[in-house]
Amino acid sequence: MPSSQGEKDLEALRGQIRAVTSDILKKVQERMVLAEQVGEVKSRLGIDVKDEKVEQEIRQMVIKQAGETGMSIEFALRLLNVLLSESEAVQEQKRPQQNNKAPRQTHLGIFQKAKQLEASGRRIIHLEVGEPDYPAPAQAGSALAESFAQKKYHYTDTRGIPQLREAIAKKNRVGEERVMVTPGGRFAVFAAIASLVRPGEEIIAIEPAWPAYRECADFIGARTKVLKTTLESGWTPDLKELESMITSGTKMIALNYPNNPTGKVLDKKTMDRIVALAKGHGLYLLSDEVYSDYSFKPFESVHAYGYDKGVIVSSFSKTYAMTGFRVGYAVASADLIKKMAKVQAVGVTSVAEPVQLAALAALGADPSRNVELMKRRLRFLSGKLKEMSLRFVEPDGAMYVYPELHSGGEDMQLVERLLERGVAIAPGSGFGDSYRRFVRISACRNEKEMEKGLAIMADEVRKAR
Amino acid sequence: MPSSQGEKDLEALRGQIRAVTSDILKKVQERMVLAEQVGEVKSRLGIDVKDEKVEQEIRQMVIKQAGETGMSIEFALRLLNVLLSESEAVQEQKRPQQNNKAPRQTHLGIFQKAKQLEASGRRIIHLEVGEPDYPAPAQAGSALAESFAQKKYHYTDTRGIPQLREAIAKKNRVGEERVMVTPGGRFAVFAAIASLVRPGEEIIAIEPAWPAYRECADFIGARTKVLKTTLESGWTPDLKELESMITSGTKMIALNYPNNPTGKVLDKKTMDRIVALAKGHGLYLLSDEVYSDYSFKPFESVHAYGYDKGVIVSSFSKTYAMTGFRVGYAVASADLIKKMAKVQAVGVTSVAEPVQLAALAALGADPSRNVELMKRRLRFLSGKLKEMSLRFVEPDGAMYVYPELHSGGEDMQLVERLLERGVAIAPGSGFGDSYRRFVRISACRNEKEMEKGLAIMADEVRKAR
Repeated sequence: MPSSQGEKDLEALRGQIRAVTSDILKKVQERMVLAEQVGEVKSRLGIDVKDEKVEQEIRQMVIKQAGETGMSIEFALRLLNVLLSESEAVQEQKRPQQNNKAPRQTHLGIFQKAKQLEASGRRIIHLEVGEPDYPAPAQAGSALAESFAQKKYHYTDTRGIPQLREAIAKKNRVGEERVMVTPGGRFAVFAAIASLVRPGEEIIAIEPAWPAYRECADFIGARTKVLKTTLESGWTPDLKELESMITSGTKMIALNYPNNPTGKVLDKKTMDRIVALAKGHGLYLLSDEVYSDYSFKPFESVHAYGYDKGVIVSSFSKTYAMTGFRVGYAVASADLIKKMAKVQAVGVTSVAEPVQLAALAALGADPSRNVELMKRRLRFLSGKLKEMSLRFVEPDGAMYVYPELHSGGEDMQLVERLLERGVAIAPGSGFGDSYRRFVRISACRNEKEMEKGLAIMADEVRKAR
Repeated sequence: MPSSQGEKDLEALRGQIRAVTSDILKKVQERMVLAEQVGEVKSRLGIDVKDEKVEQEIRQMVIKQAGETGMSIEFALRLLNVLLSESEAVQEQKRPQQNNKAPRQTHLGIFQKAKQLEASGRRIIHLEVGEPDYPAPAQAGSALAESFAQKKYHYTDTRGIPQLREAIAKKNRVGEERVMVTPGGRFAVFAAIASLVRPGEEIIAIEPAWPAYRECADFIGARTKVLKTTLESGWTPDLKELESMITSGTKMIALNYPNNPTGKVLDKKTMDRIVALAKGHGLYLLSDEVYSDYSFKPFESVHAYGYDKGVIVSSFSKTYAMTGFRVGYAVASADLIKKMAKVQAVGVTSVAEPVQLAALAALGADPSRNVELMKRRLRFLSGKLKEMSLRFVEPDGAMYVYPELHSGGEDMQLVERLLERGVAIAPGSGFGDSYRRFVRISACRNEKEMEKGLAIMADEVRKAR
């Protein structure tokens, strides 16, 4: 029994809270019934459940109302997102079996399939995966062996061993407090998105792109808005369109140059403008520069702009052919690194010490031979694709060519036919929903092996015409 | 302009949705104002912001109302939790500077501090961290070196290399499709919680416990309900209380036996009842059995119960003294492993191949010497703590003793005083808010080193009396 006036007040307030909560639920239920009806109409009209424009309108309304009533806009948007997600789920559920829209396949999905075929005894030519066939630096191997002899296989600072952080910091001309070593570049992306973007907020990805940005955003319940680029425009993003997509719910732009899959490198003027845009709107700029060493024209890192909301992601995987060591890193302000380190502490504690030491040793190696080799292979690959009369933009960098199939061609059809014949390539749609007529061919195998695989591809492309 | 009846219907429905959304926001804002008032009263009365009982009541009300109106209970609870979290945040904000409640420190936080002190030249006796000082199996070292010679440093199947998965599967008498290799046991916990629990849903942790379950739940926006156990009851959970905590929002019970930090192993009858409870309520049972090899009385794995919602987490870190290799694994149904593999693919692609091969080789080693050593050290440690007249329960397993400080003792005070004197121990409150009068002492160093550290601890404990 409430004994004091304070406790009586508390009881009364709690009663009111219960009543309001009940009202909220009633209204939410009303909203769900309406959403279901919308779903039925959309289904009848054959319209997709998701409608960016309508969402955007309601988001603006919520922002306005929250602002007027002194409610936290972030909280209001988060709440809205819970409502929108449930509406979408309800509408999808009510739909008759979707018109055979196959689930999106990524290059990694095909790689896993190819691995399974190999396990069952098949021989596969791997043109699907960004995994160089040339060896990792010998130094990395020695370091791996030495680490064991020296009993260096213990928990390390969450951000990585000091020597490796210092070496990376030196390379980037920053202090070591601005570096975190991660289990692959992927976890750097994950940690950045998970620590800097909240559920219900938005990131902008420029597609085609490595799918990790979208996957990480999906994972934490953030929304990905897509700026599409086209072969016709040489994969150059339309910056006016980019600007028009930014709302107060937008928190991050994800850049991926040299681009995977197109090999595009942005010119300095375009980069200047993107950085200015991010600065102007206070957005995080996540720049995945994993392929920066494989750039065949001048490449300016976002790092050079000294933007305090920039996060640069890089990796040992491509430059040093160390994919399976799973070591990458992030460079950002000390403050952002601290936030990202919290995610790393929750997820993985720290990166395996032996592979950190191998990465440190690899920094002493000269990757220029790898880069020259890749350049030559890409030239070879481009030549072969031209012989097939496929359209594509010559890559400025990275390890891939991203050709468009002849009219009527569907990526997954070609991917599956080729896999049956022992050649793995990546479907274009894995890099963006709008690219079902593209495929990505990797130049990570030697010319002889590529030649074999591409001959089979040429045959299938001819048959499909 | 809407051209068909369908489009006109759509327009009308969207208008209604906007209106209802606006109503919801208004009500939510009302609720926030009330929550603030509650916060003020609580602050006046000196009551904590969080009140499990009141929350529970409102949760029951929401479940009832959702059930009656045909609303998804899951969704209703998710929504409620978004509201509750924001209310809490608002109330905490409104509080005058909290009465010096220091931010929670975990054993890892102290470890990082100790590492920094070492980097600055100090010598530290590490009694804070669960990292054995004895070496990893020699086989692991050879495998590491061989992996490089054989160029085995590539992307692997997301779930791990087939040989390692098969070896783990064989050990657990299941098919390899029920195993996933993870970067440390921690990521197995992360993947389980992230894939099986949704934001706003609840897990139950039995504290004191390793903080990872709560950290991972926090990370994805799920709530952790805590079943407290006490020294007085020998750290035995009260199963009636456990049952009373389960609501339709509860999705998982996290078990951690042999327990870190207390060393408790549950008897078979208690385990039977917990499994029956989980089954009866359809809850996931996450069983972190990382210390199962260090059990000094019969230990029954949750695995033995054949429960299809059971997820067993284990690791090479403790058994084989391979903490810094960062390799652990999960065993669960093929279906759950598939879900967890999706999280792993998003976060890390796969585990470093060299360390997977090292783990495979380690499985050929016999860990029984390690276990005997640990048993002896724990006996030694227990003896020393008895000499300090500290109360504790003799551990049934694991690598720690968890004593209670003398009346008035505060964990962080002792931890900090000892750190100044070159001895690192873990604060009890890192394993649960209610354990500020406990500390965790690790038996991972040899007796001579422990003796040195414990003498300093004895001195500080004496001074504090």
